Amino acid sequence: MYYGVAYYPEHWPEERWAVDAKLMQEAGVNGVRMGEFAWSALEPREGEYRFDWLDRAVELLADHGIKTIMCTCSRTPPPWVFAKYPEIRNTAADRLTSNYGHRYTVCHSSPVFRELSQRIDRAVVEHYADNENVIAWHTDNEIGAGNTCYCDVCRGEFHKYLREKYGSVENLNERWGAHFWSFALSDFAEAPLPVGVATANPSLALEYSRFVSKCNAEFARWPYELMKKLSPDKWVTTNFQTERTDHTDIFEMGEWTDVYGTNFYPPMGTELALDYCRGSRGKLLILEQRSGQPHWSEATKPGWMRLWAWRSVAHGACGLNFFRWRPCLWGQEEYWHAVLPHSGRPGRRYEELKRMGEELKQIGEAIEATRPPARVAMVMSYESRWALKAVLTEPRMDVLSEARRCHDALMQQNVCLDAMDPREDLSRYALVIAPRLYCVDDRVSDNLQRFVEGGGVLCLTARSGAVDEYNKIFSQPSPGPLRDMAGIEIDEYGALPEPLLLCNEGGEFEGNLKQAELWADEIIVTGARPVATYAEGWLAGTPAVTVNEFGRGKVVYVGTVLTGETLEAFLEWLCRLADVASVLDVPPGVRAFERRGDRQRFLFLLNFSEASQSVALDENWRDAFTREPATPIEISPLDVRVLAREE
Amino acid sequence: MYYGVAYYPEHWPEERWAVDAKLMQEAGVNGVRMGEFAWSALEPREGEYRFDWLDRAVELLADHGIKTIMCTCSRTPPPWVFAKYPEIRNTAADRLTSNYGHRYTVCHSSPVFRELSQRIDRAVVEHYADNENVIAWHTDNEIGAGNTCYCDVCRGEFHKYLREKYGSVENLNERWGAHFWSFALSDFAEAPLPVGVATANPSLALEYSRFVSKCNAEFARWPYELMKKLSPDKWVTTNFQTERTDHTDIFEMGEWTDVYGTNFYPPMGTELALDYCRGSRGKLLILEQRSGQPHWSEATKPGWMRLWAWRSVAHGACGLNFFRWRPCLWGQEEYWHAVLPHSGRPGRRYEELKRMGEELKQIGEAIEATRPPARVAMVMSYESRWALKAVLTEPRMDVLSEARRCHDALMQQNVCLDAMDPREDLSRYALVIAPRLYCVDDRVSDNLQRFVEGGGVLCLTARSGAVDEYNKIFSQPSPGPLRDMAGIEIDEYGALPEPLLLCNEGGEFEGNLKQAELWADEIIVTGARPVATYAEGWLAGTPAVTVNEFGRGKVVYVGTVLTGETLEAFLEWLCRLADVASVLDVPPGVRAFERRGDRQRFLFLLNFSEASQSVALDENWRDAFTREPATPIEISPLDVRVLAREE
Amino acid sequence: MYYGVAYYPEHWPEERWAVDAKLMQEAGVNGVRMGEFAWSALEPREGEYRFDWLDRAVELLADHGIKTIMCTCSRTPPPWVFAKYPEIRNTAADRLTSNYGHRYTVCHSSPVFRELSQRIDRAVVEHYADNENVIAWHTDNEIGAGNTCYCDVCRGEFHKYLREKYGSVENLNERWGAHFWSFALSDFAEAPLPVGVATANPSLALEYSRFVSKCNAEFARWPYELMKKLSPDKWVTTNFQTERTDHTDIFEMGEWTDVYGTNFYPPMGTELALDYCRGSRGKLLILEQRSGQPHWSEATKPGWMRLWAWRSVAHGACGLNFFRWRPCLWGQEEYWHAVLPHSGRPGRRYEELKRMGEELKQIGEAIEATRPPARVAMVMSYESRWALKAVLTEPRMDVLSEARRCHDALMQQNVCLDAMDPREDLSRYALVIAPRLYCVDDRVSDNLQRFVEGGGVLCLTARSGAVDEYNKIFSQPSPGPLRDMAGIEIDEYGALPEPLLLCNEGGEFEGNLKQAELWADEIIVTGARPVATYAEGWLAGTPAVTVNEFGRGKVVYVGTVLTGETLEAFLEWLCRLADVASVLDVPPGVRAFERRGDRQRFLFLLNFSEASQSVALDENWRDAFTREPATPIEISPLDVRVLAREE
Repeated sequence: MYYGVAYYPEHWPEERWAVDAKLMQEAGVNGVRMGEFAWSALEPREGEYRFDWLDRAVELLADHGIKTIMCTCSRTPPPWVFAKYPEIRNTAADRLTSNYGHRYTVCHSSPVFRELSQRIDRAVVEHYADNENVIAWHTDNEIGAGNTCYCDVCRGEFHKYLREKYGSVENLNERWGAHFWSFALSDFAEAPLPVGVATANPSLALEYSRFVSKCNAEFARWPYELMKKLSPDKWVTTNFQTERTDHTDIFEMGEWTDVYGTNFYPPMGTELALDYCRGSRGKLLILEQRSGQPHWSEATKPGWMRLWAWRSVAHGACGLNFFRWRPCLWGQEEYWHAVLPHSGRPGRRYEELKRMGEELKQIGEAIEATRPPARVAMVMSYESRWALKAVLTEPRMDVLSEARRCHDALMQQNVCLDAMDPREDLSRYALVIAPRLYCVDDRVSDNLQRFVEGGGVLCLTARSGAVDEYNKIFSQPSPGPLRDMAGIEIDEYGALPEPLLLCNEGGEFEGNLKQAELWADEIIVTGARPVATYAEGWLAGTPAVTVNEFGRGKVVYVGTVLTGETLEAFLEWLCRLADVASVLDVPPGVRAFERRGDRQRFLFLLNFSEASQSVALDENWRDAFTREPATPIEISPLDVRVLAREE
Repeated sequence: MYYGVAYYPEHWPEERWAVDAKLMQEAGVNGVRMGEFAWSALEPREGEYRFDWLDRAVELLADHGIKTIMCTCSRTPPPWVFAKYPEIRNTAADRLTSNYGHRYTVCHSSPVFRELSQRIDRAVVEHYADNENVIAWHTDNEIGAGNTCYCDVCRGEFHKYLREKYGSVENLNERWGAHFWSFALSDFAEAPLPVGVATANPSLALEYSRFVSKCNAEFARWPYELMKKLSPDKWVTTNFQTERTDHTDIFEMGEWTDVYGTNFYPPMGTELALDYCRGSRGKLLILEQRSGQPHWSEATKPGWMRLWAWRSVAHGACGLNFFRWRPCLWGQEEYWHAVLPHSGRPGRRYEELKRMGEELKQIGEAIEATRPPARVAMVMSYESRWALKAVLTEPRMDVLSEARRCHDALMQQNVCLDAMDPREDLSRYALVIAPRLYCVDDRVSDNLQRFVEGGGVLCLTARSGAVDEYNKIFSQPSPGPLRDMAGIEIDEYGALPEPLLLCNEGGEFEGNLKQAELWADEIIVTGARPVATYAEGWLAGTPAVTVNEFGRGKVVYVGTVLTGETLEAFLEWLCRLADVASVLDVPPGVRAFERRGDRQRFLFLLNFSEASQSVALDENWRDAFTREPATPIEISPLDVRVLAREE
Repeated sequence: MYYGVAYYPEHWPEERWAVDAKLMQEAGVNGVRMGEFAWSALEPREGEYRFDWLDRAVELLADHGIKTIMCTCSRTPPPWVFAKYPEIRNTAADRLTSNYGHRYTVCHSSPVFRELSQRIDRAVVEHYADNENVIAWHTDNEIGAGNTCYCDVCRGEFHKYLREKYGSVENLNERWGAHFWSFALSDFAEAPLPVGVATANPSLALEYSRFVSKCNAEFARWPYELMKKLSPDKWVTTNFQTERTDHTDIFEMGEWTDVYGTNFYPPMGTELALDYCRGSRGKLLILEQRSGQPHWSEATKPGWMRLWAWRSVAHGACGLNFFRWRPCLWGQEEYWHAVLPHSGRPGRRYEELKRMGEELKQIGEAIEATRPPARVAMVMSYESRWALKAVLTEPRMDVLSEARRCHDALMQQNVCLDAMDPREDLSRYALVIAPRLYCVDDRVSDNLQRFVEGGGVLCLTARSGAVDEYNKIFSQPSPGPLRDMAGIEIDEYGALPEPLLLCNEGGEFEGNLKQAELWADEIIVTGARPVATYAEGWLAGTPAVTVNEFGRGKVVYVGTVLTGETLEAFLEWLCRLADVASVLDVPPGVRAFERRGDRQRFLFLLNFSEASQSVALDENWRDAFTREPATPIEISPLDVRVLAREE
């Protein structure tokens, strides 16, 4: 299994490199990611290319058994580029242009930037295409982050995009709706960008989000094609920025990679990121796995770096790359801590790196041949996220919050899931949860219908099926095209300033459905059965949760927001309804994960508590290292046990 | 009585119009407001006018007994206008120009915008001047909202305004005071606009507020004059934006209407808006009465739409226009809910519309002939609001907060009042409350003095009479020109970080004056008697409230902020002092309102509680619908009872 | 002793001046500060100078025994200057240029502004150089406040500054570190300014802070040299803005004054300001001593104006100038209250002014010959403040908060101290406290080492010695160059989300060290002894406070943040360790200060409580006014007693 660190030889005196390489090798490190911010070191003045230092670094590392993932570096041009080509600067929504000296201060639409970018990318790819110590490519870094631009070039490109997509302004006006506040285009060139003092037109804003995502994905395409042409045997990856960011549809950009990658800095990054970026593809490379703490926060306490890293593996990681080997002594991220401290002296995190390195040497390869066996899918729609951000609504009713709530609760129940785009094939799953699926087009509704008709259980939440792909509200009751499936109709809804008590209806389940929060749809059942109703207030007796038989499957609809114990009870019931089992029953504080391969299964037991924990197992599990039968097993505080069995 | 809805035929397929018209007719609707954002539909390309669709809508509605209030639409130009005439864009205080696609993104000073505006307005007015189904005009929408502009054209106009008002810079420097921080003009052209990193010169800021208000009022003048010229029989209205907004002096803009109109979205809009926009004129058209909830908020619960609407009537409304018939399926306000839901299916709010429609058919005309019989006036000064906003002070010491506190407490006591400009005739009132009358010119002080000399009771609050009409502090003690009337002088004052206990002085009243908050004047009595004094701290023994005999009347001065029970006790005492009675004693949760006409009086009893309430009355009241004698009466939860008697 | 007020004759009718002068004289006032915002009155149009009015004011005041400190006035140009020379406007970090009508809206780098500034300054200085009633100069007002500028002129000057300092970009890249996010300069002209959407490069940001401070100091140099040339007998001062501001290194700007001055508005300004601006120089002029309250706040309660003023004297003031005689009736600071109220009638604060005036007439001269006898120094580094502001870190871990915490606690213990630059001579002190000494250059570390080797006790706090003078992190463990002295090494650290209990280690002291907050270094002792360790959590047993013998002295290191009782206990122990005594043991609410001269000592006892207090003394103290023996003495609420003894 790939086991590496982010390394920046350009920050350190060359005499230090050998020390670093030796320490890495001793810790079991077998790879490094290098180069993503090295443009200024590779081309310090226009046309003066200097690869010698990086060549020496690659070679030295290879001499220590460490292969390189080489990054292109065009997203962060050096000062000389901005001084000579100021037109490449990014323009923010407030119309101030960026100042260089930061990251990602460029305009992706700029033809000048594109040319500059392709020139340096080509230089890097051509230089290392035949270097056997370079095993893979990493396209730039966090593509799209901080890059949404509102300059005139972007506006022109956006007009071109609209013209190609809609053909005529009449068509656009028809799709978007017209004449609200006198907004109707008479020419594509009139389309404004979604900036200014107030909320923009929701259709315009959604389309601009799509356009920006497309630009960012496009930015990854050119180097991908060059890499595959010049070095077809090297694989290509790039690092998405966890589940939080929504500047780019990672599934769209993912087309221009061979292996999905992501950053993972718990607790900033939640485990949802791991299931989302891995999703239905079954594998994921963690390109920035947390080691030390980000500047402003609590220290990485002893044990946690390794525990978090093992959790990534348990979630399906096919490789880990810690960010980073050693923190820079200068620059804006000088306090983003690393494996080594500023002094470069191996300390407690180096020991954890080494311990896990030794462990992976034994069982990493076997683990790599397995994947998490998810029977639950969580579908998350970028278009719903973009569409909802573009309208005025209760801010806590967004897609990500709902998804995180559900994901967290399922994690507590040790249920394995894939998170993914709602247009992906769902046939392998028993249960699909669609948190806040606000925006629904034909492909999405057909896909969900196919899934339910085939016998699946689908769970929808409030505000599902509200708008079409143009962010226009359906003129049918909610959930729009999904209402037949759900067996309900909704015309009225609103925020709940205070929670309302719930009661179970008809004994559908015995769980502890305590209260509804934040939101209440006024559900009219047209075929569904109530599962829970409001127990008080003017909504007393109105269904809050319903279930409907449809085809060979079922659709559950939650017309409010459930949290805490209520959400847990609901999800337990939902899993039973879909016949989905937990990986294992474990004591509180312990988490259980499974990975399965053709020949072997692994059980990962992680103890997130500060006390030893005991777990009972059936008799077929053996310790993955010692191969001794293992039940019951003890897990030390903040420790992990890996068990295995033949499939 | 006018009973209507805001309707946007341009948002719906023409085949739907007939459905809507029929539903409206069945609900008793007799009017619609149309057209205020229809520029893009009326002139989709420059010079291409299309009135045919709107003509058809007017006619169809008329066929269903529904007359039209036609709006001009120039405040929201379509994209083609901005594309061709970008110089009309509004410039915010941060000097960013507006982007179109929103509302009100224009500069009212721009001669280009004025010409464009008058061209479309003339087209509308000429087209409908002779249409008998159009009964009235509505000048644009929320004139002045979001429109304060800081562009160079505005600056030039402001210089012209200053030159005309002051004649010479020497005069201006004399009136404003000079040389503070070296600020003294040597030429009108040097006058800056009140923008930038810090607070502007208070005199400059007040004068710019006056200038902006004047521009906005002026914007209403031109169409008014055209309308009256081309269609003298149609009345003209426009919608002010409740009591909250202060961009425009509604009494100044009101000159260019025949009937004052306002928006009313409880709880955002408080009842103060109703008494303020109606004020001494006795009548008011509610042009946007809340139906469904604004996007981000709690649902309009069953019963409330009608209850709120009746409350507007009880406050003196001469007509209601619900906002709006049906929410748009797109655009920034797509979640501003309406009578119908997005699906267009009549639901619970339609039933309320219909119920009230039937009620008004019976008694609406008789109610329209009556007015609220206020013996209390609350004078609110725009200049005080502008003047206070321009200085650094305790933010909760503003005019509006003080006015709302007093108004709320009087409403709880079922006291009827008019809110109005302090320069209006006060002779008909027994009690005048002047919340935070910070800025006082000769007209205001003479008016108040005349009122008190004539026997009235005037109540002043802290910081009254602090500055003159140029926002310059009087060099006499506070309350400046009002201090003889008040019989007090104040040199010292300050914020109260913690409340202070009060005690009643000399048994002037027996109420429960508990505590003073936020502020304390150090009152020196020069003729007044203390009514309450501070009971603790370094101010112990200092008067907090005083009363002074002046002429045939009295002046009460409150040198602190009273709230809650203390404020209620104080206002009870104040009403007794002025011999002002409550409409009726009613149980908590019930509100009582009266309207009087030449021949008949109406008593409105509104039950805002969720329990039935019983109210005792004298024997002369009869149910307004059944004419049965009515005492005692029962009122259902969230219901209204209207009673009548001959005068 | 100088005893004066800020006076603005340009704001008042000339007939009032005589009233004011008489009132001042009767109150014992012997000086005024005038003219700092009078440019518009002195030169109302370009080239038209009018000194006549100011000449008359100076003379009238002199006739009443009142001398003038004359200010230059170039920092606030009148409107005509901006109208004619708009290029002098300040450009903020968001690239908006300032609007005039405020204070300090200029660019100090602008050659045009420099010329204009020097022209008016020269006019003022030449005009009053020979006026014997003008005893001193005051260079402008609050130099540097609100003035940091990011215009192209500044950028050019900054490039020049960098070129002169670093010689070559290679050297700069070496000192700052290069290639982080591809940041490496190929030419000085590429250096950006530290503005934009995110945090700037820390080295760039620190250097720009230095550059701005230098510009501001430079701005004070030219008038100083002119003043000393034209009037060598007049002393020069200017008002720093207390301890809070960090735009300018006051010690650097102080070179261009003869007497340091400051503003002091308690409670906004803490006593730290008094010890800091006085520092090792032993004397300080309070140029703006609080009289009335700033607009937005609580009144100055009776007694406090005089009590605060005496506290300034007790801290070593060599003169007081109250801000201000009377509040302006207009302008942005109209509600910054004064000795007189707006009405100009003498009130309670005038009586306090007069009482203190009479007291100082008796003993002011004798007091002026004495100084606070500090044996403790607190060193505060501007470079540490600038360096820390430029990085992302826990915001409460700044220099000023730590300094204020320590200073407040020492004040409660009546310990006298000087606050100063860490490069100043420390040999006279027994104890040096260095709060958050983040940035350390050779001069600082050598100075501290010399101090400790000589027998002093040095107290360092967390994050000391982290970065070098280029804001580059040391590649050695913390505290970098101070670690040998401290006998410790630190590689790991982080924020503490919750406080941790401490326990004393080895009985080093018996105080009540309760808890650690906010931050924890993981201290490795290399020679030091633990003084306190963490009592719980994963840090249990790790030292939190250490002490190390070094040379003839000791270094104490605090690897966390101590507050409240814990901090008090720690500082008591620290003073005992350094053999530093409190001025006197006094009851709670009373504060004791000492000043010593060659012949006499003064003891100031200030009662900040609302009850009388009794203090026991040894027998040699006498009442400074009556010369009666004084022990025990009673102090009335909010009163002060001054005692004296022969030295």
